[in-house]
Amino acid sequence: MDKNISKLAADNIRILSAAMVEKAKSGHPGGAMGGADFMHVLFSEYLNYDPADRTWFNRDRFFLDPGHMSPMLYAGLALTGTYSMEELANFRQWGSPTPGHPEVDFARGVENTSGPLGQGHVMAVGAAIAERFLAARFGEWMSHNIYTFISDGGIQEEISQGAGRIAGHLGLGNLVMFYDSNDIQLSTVTDDVTIEDTAKKYEAWGWATMTIDGNDHDQIRKALDAASAETEKPFLIIGKTIMGKGAVTANGDSFEKQVSTHGQPLSAAGASFADTLKNLGADVENPFQVFAEVEALYNEANNKKAAYVADKKAEQAEWAKANPELAAKLAQFISGETNIDYAAIEQKAGAATRGASSTVLGVFAEQVENMIVMSADLANSDKTDGFLKKTTVFKKGDFSGAFLQIGVAELTMGAIANGMALHGGVIPVCGTFFVFSDYMKPTARMAALMQLPVKYVWTHDAFRVGEDGPTHQPIEQEAQIRLLEKLKNHHGDNGMLVVRPADVNETTVAWKMAMENTKTPTALILSRQNIPNLPESDYNKALQAEKGAYIVEKDADTPDVVLLASGSEVGTLVEGAKLLREQKGLKVNVVSVISEGLFRNQDKAYQAEVLPADVPRFGMTAGLPVTLEGLVGLNGTVWGLDHFGYSAPYTVLDEKFGFTGENVLKQVTEMLG
Amino acid sequence: MDKNISKLAADNIRILSAAMVEKAKSGHPGGAMGGADFMHVLFSEYLNYDPADRTWFNRDRFFLDPGHMSPMLYAGLALTGTYSMEELANFRQWGSPTPGHPEVDFARGVENTSGPLGQGHVMAVGAAIAERFLAARFGEWMSHNIYTFISDGGIQEEISQGAGRIAGHLGLGNLVMFYDSNDIQLSTVTDDVTIEDTAKKYEAWGWATMTIDGNDHDQIRKALDAASAETEKPFLIIGKTIMGKGAVTANGDSFEKQVSTHGQPLSAAGASFADTLKNLGADVENPFQVFAEVEALYNEANNKKAAYVADKKAEQAEWAKANPELAAKLAQFISGETNIDYAAIEQKAGAATRGASSTVLGVFAEQVENMIVMSADLANSDKTDGFLKKTTVFKKGDFSGAFLQIGVAELTMGAIANGMALHGGVIPVCGTFFVFSDYMKPTARMAALMQLPVKYVWTHDAFRVGEDGPTHQPIEQEAQIRLLEKLKNHHGDNGMLVVRPADVNETTVAWKMAMENTKTPTALILSRQNIPNLPESDYNKALQAEKGAYIVEKDADTPDVVLLASGSEVGTLVEGAKLLREQKGLKVNVVSVISEGLFRNQDKAYQAEVLPADVPRFGMTAGLPVTLEGLVGLNGTVWGLDHFGYSAPYTVLDEKFGFTGENVLKQVTEMLG
Repeated sequence: MDKNISKLAADNIRILSAAMVEKAKSGHPGGAMGGADFMHVLFSEYLNYDPADRTWFNRDRFFLDPGHMSPMLYAGLALTGTYSMEELANFRQWGSPTPGHPEVDFARGVENTSGPLGQGHVMAVGAAIAERFLAARFGEWMSHNIYTFISDGGIQEEISQGAGRIAGHLGLGNLVMFYDSNDIQLSTVTDDVTIEDTAKKYEAWGWATMTIDGNDHDQIRKALDAASAETEKPFLIIGKTIMGKGAVTANGDSFEKQVSTHGQPLSAAGASFADTLKNLGADVENPFQVFAEVEALYNEANNKKAAYVADKKAEQAEWAKANPELAAKLAQFISGETNIDYAAIEQKAGAATRGASSTVLGVFAEQVENMIVMSADLANSDKTDGFLKKTTVFKKGDFSGAFLQIGVAELTMGAIANGMALHGGVIPVCGTFFVFSDYMKPTARMAALMQLPVKYVWTHDAFRVGEDGPTHQPIEQEAQIRLLEKLKNHHGDNGMLVVRPADVNETTVAWKMAMENTKTPTALILSRQNIPNLPESDYNKALQAEKGAYIVEKDADTPDVVLLASGSEVGTLVEGAKLLREQKGLKVNVVSVISEGLFRNQDKAYQAEVLPADVPRFGMTAGLPVTLEGLVGLNGTVWGLDHFGYSAPYTVLDEKFGFTGENVLKQVTEMLG
Repeated sequence: MDKNISKLAADNIRILSAAMVEKAKSGHPGGAMGGADFMHVLFSEYLNYDPADRTWFNRDRFFLDPGHMSPMLYAGLALTGTYSMEELANFRQWGSPTPGHPEVDFARGVENTSGPLGQGHVMAVGAAIAERFLAARFGEWMSHNIYTFISDGGIQEEISQGAGRIAGHLGLGNLVMFYDSNDIQLSTVTDDVTIEDTAKKYEAWGWATMTIDGNDHDQIRKALDAASAETEKPFLIIGKTIMGKGAVTANGDSFEKQVSTHGQPLSAAGASFADTLKNLGADVENPFQVFAEVEALYNEANNKKAAYVADKKAEQAEWAKANPELAAKLAQFISGETNIDYAAIEQKAGAATRGASSTVLGVFAEQVENMIVMSADLANSDKTDGFLKKTTVFKKGDFSGAFLQIGVAELTMGAIANGMALHGGVIPVCGTFFVFSDYMKPTARMAALMQLPVKYVWTHDAFRVGEDGPTHQPIEQEAQIRLLEKLKNHHGDNGMLVVRPADVNETTVAWKMAMENTKTPTALILSRQNIPNLPESDYNKALQAEKGAYIVEKDADTPDVVLLASGSEVGTLVEGAKLLREQKGLKVNVVSVISEGLFRNQDKAYQAEVLPADVPRFGMTAGLPVTLEGLVGLNGTVWGLDHFGYSAPYTVLDEKFGFTGENVLKQVTEMLG
């Protein structure tokens, strides 16, 4: 490699990054200029991809963690051929494929959406696990590396602890992380916030580490070679880099290592944009260019990669010929499709819905060979152990099982699930208590934004958790997570499917809905306590839940009152309906609303059938009333809980809080006046 | 100390813990039995408190992190005299002061609510900072120690990384953490999830560490003595303990070190409750007793503590006599009261509300001497730098400033703020982008549950963030955080006050509301972009925001339409109202709703004055429509955003998304038909 051309290529990334931010009048140039050297060496010399098809399944992955360094990513990818100069020039503009923070776009080499610091590199850990899972089943011929790039902010984010621990514990030798350590963060120098010995910290987690001059290309190569050679441990390259490398003022003084270049155009920071570009060898009038030598370098690099990929594809073709069944299975894994006979799943009547979920997961353990289930140290409570009992946990060097013990690290679990889904070929499921969905929200939002089919098993779903008390009783969480049902993704679909089944058969159907929803994340909200089966409950009746809401008990097309709820409260309404009929002679329909968001997607006629326009409605929710107020509207009232719960057996709380058939009788009678 | 009596006291805690869980038929006995030795030694020999007044301000604090180990805490505190045997026997029952997870109760020695793992020990870090802040101002005579107890789960939680880094960085020599390391967690053994060298990790953060047999009282004493002697670093005692210490089966075999004793009664786990109690020397028929020797030991311990406290109080009295002004200031700090002339604060018309907040914070930096402001590395963006510019950041050994650079660790910041508020004497404020309130939700919920007057400065409040794109544009976050307004705390107050001011003068008033709200947390939701002042805006007019909503522009008591919004959308409605008057000849009232939760607390007459019953309403929100649907109801429509945003300048997004006066004209005209 010609040293001068190599430097020129990195300078090209610096020039483009600085120019993009300058033109957009917003963005983050300094870090991008410091990290450019690593990006160039990685992209041109190490990262395996198919120049003709960036979605090639066995490509190396590159996960950017600090999304604000998007100029560096776009500029680097532009050198590889996936962005035009015009697209770079339209950085951060309406309709441009170069948004302020990267949004997943496999075809262009953007493997993940990033922005909230810390999540990106944890997605890389998830991808690295998926890679090992698949290689364990199909062979090392398909192995590839997972690279990720993290900044000081990501190192500080709480979530990096979970990733560091899990990657070290599992000995992910396929994971290489470059830590762009420039001693500067957005608002200050790192000395103001940390004295951490980062290498020591990662070594405590079982990583191999190497500290280098992150702007020195030969040192970068040496580190990447060492990382490739390390197969037993994840590898951390701590690259000491220079923030704003190449930046100068109008009189030519260095303007490197300045906090001010972190988050604004160079000119706004106090540097001279024009002189910096000159200093880097750019055409100041027309900076959106690739140097001819650099273009040639990348053409050659892409040719090499194409040859490598051709060999790998030939190897795969031979393998497929020799192993047609495995090849078919791999294709099916990648398709994300499953084929389960849900009707055949036998449920125990009256079980808790977490138990019913466990039954389904037990079937999946045998029939969905590409499912990976995780739990944040609650497998025996969230009942993901229904899956675990039929498989084994991931261990260092052994990914033959399909269960990941994450430990107590809910947010990490969410991001790892996202990374698995981004990698593809596997179906990630994560379980914990519903109240801890609070911890997972940032990753659930990213799953919704990236449209990833991650499944959440959130159990212990309401104050009916009982004795554990208010810290463990979700009250506002159902309303909260259903906000992601209301929030449309960029394809116009509900951002998430949220289902809260009312009995064991609805739980089977809920899982069917989750598995068939390959376009967005799905949350299953499940009970701790046992729930009696709904009247005449069976799988076929419960299938109506696929419309989001349906009539469980129907007295009339136009009854005196409609009672509606989700989850265990439907059963309470059934009790109340019985009393209303017996004692008041009323005609009562009972409706189960497993997902308001889905119900609102149905045609108006169906909605009107379930909730006739002029019939009074009574809603019941063991959470905040707002959860049902949208459906009940001014046609009635909602009996909910507007306060934190208390510690006591749930049957006591039911009495205290009025979640009984008797109280339904009382409240509905009062409502109807 | 008689070794036998010391062991008897720890066994007493074990007996009580096992009996509590057994009687409640739920809970976590194993860990409590392992940690009992440390609790006994700490409480009886090291923890300084006033037996006659557990709220004595200069007491040592003890923060329990694993709330599920509540039996150990209640049993330990019972020995010190704050719980009766009957209260222990009513563990986890309705109305009992012994809920499943501890809820803050200073008078009984419960310093924090705990349950969600990890948060408790971070609160201890916050308290330790508050202690140093106060000692720097009033003298070392008031110094005291902050002890905390963490389990394997807490060590794994992401948040412990933030606490470890910050405590090490600040050299919190007043902080002592006992890590109850028993190699077992709820669902499995720790070997299944980690190979971490925990001592090494904390050393990487600058802590002193010592590993001991955590069931050996002499080793515990040695470690606590070493911790006391260490003044430059936080001190981690890694106590290797035995899960379920003392548990046996019916035939007398050991039932120690079992995962099964983590989360259920001993009998359910497979041990013999009766034989375990016998093994520990208890009266099996009547286990809720304190041994006479143990009672004597604690009587003597409490006498010593009372004597110590008497000396400390005498020292304080002398100091107060010599320093009357400082003493008055300390009393004022502890009261939590402030006295600010808000009317005198000069705001720059048309600034962003984050800028207006910065102006107020600049005044606070000079007038609120016990305020501590933090930012998660965004001080120059969230504009907490208005405060920072007039003070200095905390450094190791120097707490004379009042600003804490947390680094990129939003969740840690939230828990540290809670710890500061629990300690008392200081007013914690934390700033970051509103979209990252997602990360802070778990700590905001705890602040609401504990009724702590923490202030959140959440800026960049809507899609109007612009170029940063969907990862940085809060859409559902306002609806989400206002769920905590709807959720009542155990005193019946709104769990949180959430204010989103519409211009600079409302921002001054918003801060007044935040400061005067000493009973719950307050969130300020502030704009990135400049906002024109509302018509005739001034401080006095804006004071009406203290009612949650008020009429900004009033054409009539009964206008043709009421337009309502919060934040920057109020200004857009004012533009629209002008067009509606000019082009349609309509009478239009414009309402600013700074807090729906607060508005709903006003009397009905006022609510009807602001929102006349039969007048059509048009709401506008730059977030999910549901934010305003409760107020607009069936009387009108809400123009909101039901999708993730896009990256582009916000003025472009305003046009694309219809957040313009012209679109208000169009939509209201259509609505009125």
